[in-house]
Amino acid sequence: MTLSVGILGATGYTGAELIRLLYRHPEATITYCSSRQYNGKKISDILEFLKGHYDAVLEEFNAASIKNRCDVIFSCLPHGVSMGYISRISPDVRVIDLSADFRIKDPSTYRLWYTEHGHHDLLKEAVYGLSEVYRDEIRDGRIIANPGCYPTSVLLPLIPLLESKLMDPYGIIVDSKSGVSGAGRGLSLKTHICETGESFSAYKVGRAHRHIPEMEQELSRAATKDISIDFIPHLIPITRGMLSTIYLRTTHTENELRECLKTYYENSPFIHVMDDSFPSTKDVRGTNRCLIALTKIEPTGRAVIVSVIDNLTKGASGQAIQNMNIMFGIDEISGLDSIPLFP
Amino acid sequence: MTLSVGILGATGYTGAELIRLLYRHPEATITYCSSRQYNGKKISDILEFLKGHYDAVLEEFNAASIKNRCDVIFSCLPHGVSMGYISRISPDVRVIDLSADFRIKDPSTYRLWYTEHGHHDLLKEAVYGLSEVYRDEIRDGRIIANPGCYPTSVLLPLIPLLESKLMDPYGIIVDSKSGVSGAGRGLSLKTHICETGESFSAYKVGRAHRHIPEMEQELSRAATKDISIDFIPHLIPITRGMLSTIYLRTTHTENELRECLKTYYENSPFIHVMDDSFPSTKDVRGTNRCLIALTKIEPTGRAVIVSVIDNLTKGASGQAIQNMNIMFGIDEISGLDSIPLFP
Amino acid sequence: MTLSVGILGATGYTGAELIRLLYRHPEATITYCSSRQYNGKKISDILEFLKGHYDAVLEEFNAASIKNRCDVIFSCLPHGVSMGYISRISPDVRVIDLSADFRIKDPSTYRLWYTEHGHHDLLKEAVYGLSEVYRDEIRDGRIIANPGCYPTSVLLPLIPLLESKLMDPYGIIVDSKSGVSGAGRGLSLKTHICETGESFSAYKVGRAHRHIPEMEQELSRAATKDISIDFIPHLIPITRGMLSTIYLRTTHTENELRECLKTYYENSPFIHVMDDSFPSTKDVRGTNRCLIALTKIEPTGRAVIVSVIDNLTKGASGQAIQNMNIMFGIDEISGLDSIPLFP
Amino acid sequence: MTLSVGILGATGYTGAELIRLLYRHPEATITYCSSRQYNGKKISDILEFLKGHYDAVLEEFNAASIKNRCDVIFSCLPHGVSMGYISRISPDVRVIDLSADFRIKDPSTYRLWYTEHGHHDLLKEAVYGLSEVYRDEIRDGRIIANPGCYPTSVLLPLIPLLESKLMDPYGIIVDSKSGVSGAGRGLSLKTHICETGESFSAYKVGRAHRHIPEMEQELSRAATKDISIDFIPHLIPITRGMLSTIYLRTTHTENELRECLKTYYENSPFIHVMDDSFPSTKDVRGTNRCLIALTKIEPTGRAVIVSVIDNLTKGASGQAIQNMNIMFGIDEISGLDSIPLFP
Repeated sequence: MTLSVGILGATGYTGAELIRLLYRHPEATITYCSSRQYNGKKISDILEFLKGHYDAVLEEFNAASIKNRCDVIFSCLPHGVSMGYISRISPDVRVIDLSADFRIKDPSTYRLWYTEHGHHDLLKEAVYGLSEVYRDEIRDGRIIANPGCYPTSVLLPLIPLLESKLMDPYGIIVDSKSGVSGAGRGLSLKTHICETGESFSAYKVGRAHRHIPEMEQELSRAATKDISIDFIPHLIPITRGMLSTIYLRTTHTENELRECLKTYYENSPFIHVMDDSFPSTKDVRGTNRCLIALTKIEPTGRAVIVSVIDNLTKGASGQAIQNMNIMFGIDEISGLDSIPLFP
Repeated sequence: MTLSVGILGATGYTGAELIRLLYRHPEATITYCSSRQYNGKKISDILEFLKGHYDAVLEEFNAASIKNRCDVIFSCLPHGVSMGYISRISPDVRVIDLSADFRIKDPSTYRLWYTEHGHHDLLKEAVYGLSEVYRDEIRDGRIIANPGCYPTSVLLPLIPLLESKLMDPYGIIVDSKSGVSGAGRGLSLKTHICETGESFSAYKVGRAHRHIPEMEQELSRAATKDISIDFIPHLIPITRGMLSTIYLRTTHTENELRECLKTYYENSPFIHVMDDSFPSTKDVRGTNRCLIALTKIEPTGRAVIVSVIDNLTKGASGQAIQNMNIMFGIDEISGLDSIPLFP
Repeated sequence: MTLSVGILGATGYTGAELIRLLYRHPEATITYCSSRQYNGKKISDILEFLKGHYDAVLEEFNAASIKNRCDVIFSCLPHGVSMGYISRISPDVRVIDLSADFRIKDPSTYRLWYTEHGHHDLLKEAVYGLSEVYRDEIRDGRIIANPGCYPTSVLLPLIPLLESKLMDPYGIIVDSKSGVSGAGRGLSLKTHICETGESFSAYKVGRAHRHIPEMEQELSRAATKDISIDFIPHLIPITRGMLSTIYLRTTHTENELRECLKTYYENSPFIHVMDDSFPSTKDVRGTNRCLIALTKIEPTGRAVIVSVIDNLTKGASGQAIQNMNIMFGIDEISGLDSIPLFP
Repeated sequence: MTLSVGILGATGYTGAELIRLLYRHPEATITYCSSRQYNGKKISDILEFLKGHYDAVLEEFNAASIKNRCDVIFSCLPHGVSMGYISRISPDVRVIDLSADFRIKDPSTYRLWYTEHGHHDLLKEAVYGLSEVYRDEIRDGRIIANPGCYPTSVLLPLIPLLESKLMDPYGIIVDSKSGVSGAGRGLSLKTHICETGESFSAYKVGRAHRHIPEMEQELSRAATKDISIDFIPHLIPITRGMLSTIYLRTTHTENELRECLKTYYENSPFIHVMDDSFPSTKDVRGTNRCLIALTKIEPTGRAVIVSVIDNLTKGASGQAIQNMNIMFGIDEISGLDSIPLFP
């Protein structure tokens, strides 16, 4: 089988990462790339690293084309925009949405943090695409809401512990750090190398980042209780990489926590629970892996978890392809079996 | 008045930073630089950026020379080594020690985290050199224990709040991030640009970093209670800069906390409490400033404080010079009145 | 004496660098800052590192204000724009123009590389502000054309050798590398940290960069011959720093070339000709220095010169202040006597 | 067919890159890894990014083991050391040597630049492994001398032009820039992130770099004349990437030069001659590609060529695998068909 794959909004960073990964995917071929801004141009004139590798012409969005030419569509369009386009795609085509549009199940919460949601029916149908947690639902899903990068790094270590009741669901603190590619290809002083290079800062300090309701929704489900977390994101002056340091209270030992995670992810090839060292973001650069390490601080009864992902791969396009693999019965690691670029 | 200044261990990063700052200090001149490794060589052959600026010859340690030629000595020697050299310096010469040797007042705590302390008498005499908090004691001190970089970034925002009882002294979480110069000029894979560049990691995760007892000593004093904190340091792939994100519980408002800090630091020119934005490490690069910002997250009752310093300036050599200014009745900002290098 | 200084276009990188340097200048005070884009706002809201240091309000351009409040004006406006504003300033006020508008003496050459020049009278009056070469003319000049960054790094080593006829004036090749701040604070994919970080490239390859006619004008004058050079600029993924590698033919020895340069710059405190090592851009970061090193390759008869400057300091705002010092009879190093930020 | 592959000196950067690439090679498996320093340890304790991917134990060098277990050996040992080990390997095993030991055909030249060569017989047998130029010889070779990184970036664009006599063989100037991984995993201040980060420098200025005789040997062969070049290497503060800017004299047009290169590399999938833009090192990061662009500067009659490679891939381990593919009749791009990591 070779899947025919389309990408909406192909010229941003998540689109570029999809192309990079699909280029070597043995069971998928890109047959359609759209761009609102650059339609009619060669994609390799917009993403120069593709020159000589992939020089297709960017097209306008066209629902008939998609129906005829694609088995699955990845949408890399911005939130608020993505749902409108997806609503016009034939239900015969499966969709993986990398925007936030189908992640939040409660439309009123979506409205509070994003904008009005005009497609409640599709929202009900959508499956939250955290691959290791929702494999079965993803397999049968028509619309997959691919998770945010911060939520991926936080939910993977916390969901097993909450479901097993090995930790206090209250008082969770998440201090996350992300490379700048998470901010996208758009231009602002925040992405100017002279302003962001050789610097480090917190941003959206307080209850401000839009990934908070997404995390609280999934953590609350796992804990079967309404949970509020404190979450502060920071900007690392690197391109790719995300590290979350998570502080939680527990009466259980470090070993019990670690064994719980190892058991939960026994059959999940991308999750690696570490025994005796702590990971760097470079250990996962360009890969779909999530590395998790933890320790218990006895005097205060707190456990500290450190998780790392590549924000563009497991945090976005890699997980999207993992979800495609699951949806179409392909080996989960197909096209995603690379080792990080080191050094 | 022109002070005659000596530096022990002048060729590391804190020594280099002292030279950079003293070079423009209007009331101090460097008259003596020692190096165990490079004595007899020109300092500008070891620190090439000094060529043509400052080409003095590095000397051996010599107590008689120091007595004759120096009003004050900065020791940039490693902990465990520094106290031995300092014990041989005439009591007529005042000493600012940038190592950890005189920071921990309890010798058994020092032994637990560092090594045996062989100079209990000097330890009793030493003053903890957090300039804004201990100005009066520093003025009259003979041996100043210059604070660690992490403690400086954490104590400056927390001490006023604890002294004013505006926060819960228990459950403090400190998530700190430091530039690599904090690891010094020594060679290891941790400082190799190909291993550390474009990466981010936590280190000494758990109750492991030697700055923990120093912070707990000072926080406990301020709270008049024994306090344990959770502290996790991280490595930012930049040279200079430190940012601490501090999570604490409080029943007071954001405004009350901010006003407390503003009042406390009213007459402290290097401390700037921000009203409506959060700082980047670049905002203080090369300066002796500490910028503090905070917010309250109402749903969880937590306040989040973000503080930034340059780990080599306010976190080490800048504060050392500030202490020298205080000790000798010089204007506190003398030699330290620069604007950050931007961009 | 305290000079009253005004800055036009104060919120870009050369404006910010002027403010940083003037902040500590003992004989100058900023009395006026204009911005076309941000007039009416506090400068520290646009340049956040100034918060608490310098919070003046940005004004509109106003010729009467300038006449009343300024002894000297620095123009950081773009080329083509700068000359128009400068033409409206009272001739009682001296002007240092950091744009290219007054660097090219021949209006037809200016038109070829830039745009139509509408102020031929002012152009005739202007002095090329390469401080070490044109000190006398600068002292008496009313309008100073502050040199470009690339020309500064190239002309300082070549002019003495050409004037002394120690090198072949033909066949000069200049391979230059610049930090990204040279591209200014404007937004483009070229300054996006994710596109430019961890990368290196040539740009304007061929006879394309606008600094070529400026270099050829001055080299031709020094050689008393019309000279064409080959010049290729490159982009280094750092903020500050410029290094030019210059290839030339000579029948003279390395020592003769070095002695020529040393003699020429004997009384120039910012030029340092190195004896036995080669410089890094970090050796001059944030300073007004130019370091020059050279060697002779006997088999091919070529000499190779390496020169480094900080593109924002000696390559722009530092040299501008040096010129101000010269114009007003102030010690040339006043306000510019700092050591590089190291590490 | 699955080749059994061994690696000598597997824990440095070229070894790590071989493992990264071979991990996904469909027709090769690593069966043996040696390390002089770490034998007996798990390779993933030395190269942490391999944890969970590849955890084999490092062995001592053992010629019998190699004979039994390997079809081909890659040697990543240092020059001077490599030849000794290789001389002990059975002639039934084919060898690709990434050191300099078999690159220089004349032992007296080797002695001049490196050390005494004790294996003249093997040296005679060795084939210079510039894949696109020596495909036929490589196919039948027993010992392949894998080219240096700088020579690869310089020879690929110059050899076709010299062979076609489209350029002046005299007066070639090569200004090259390399990422720091070219310096290897060893520790020195040159690789300390605080010294090299945010800086740029030339090194081995003059006739000093050991890649000069390697380039001159191959250029002289192509030109059928003895050629001396001027070559200055520089250090870019990035991990991977190499860009060479080459200046040469020619009476031919830009188009003639470009067509010559296109024709020469028509059937070489890794060489891409660009039509209308100039490459960045990021365009080839992690890939085996060489991108070549050029222009002619009419006033001086010089052509400027810009070539980029990843110094660890096409400049070392990628080309080594390409050579293995050629030697064993495998598709040349097998295991090397990836797209660069972007952004």
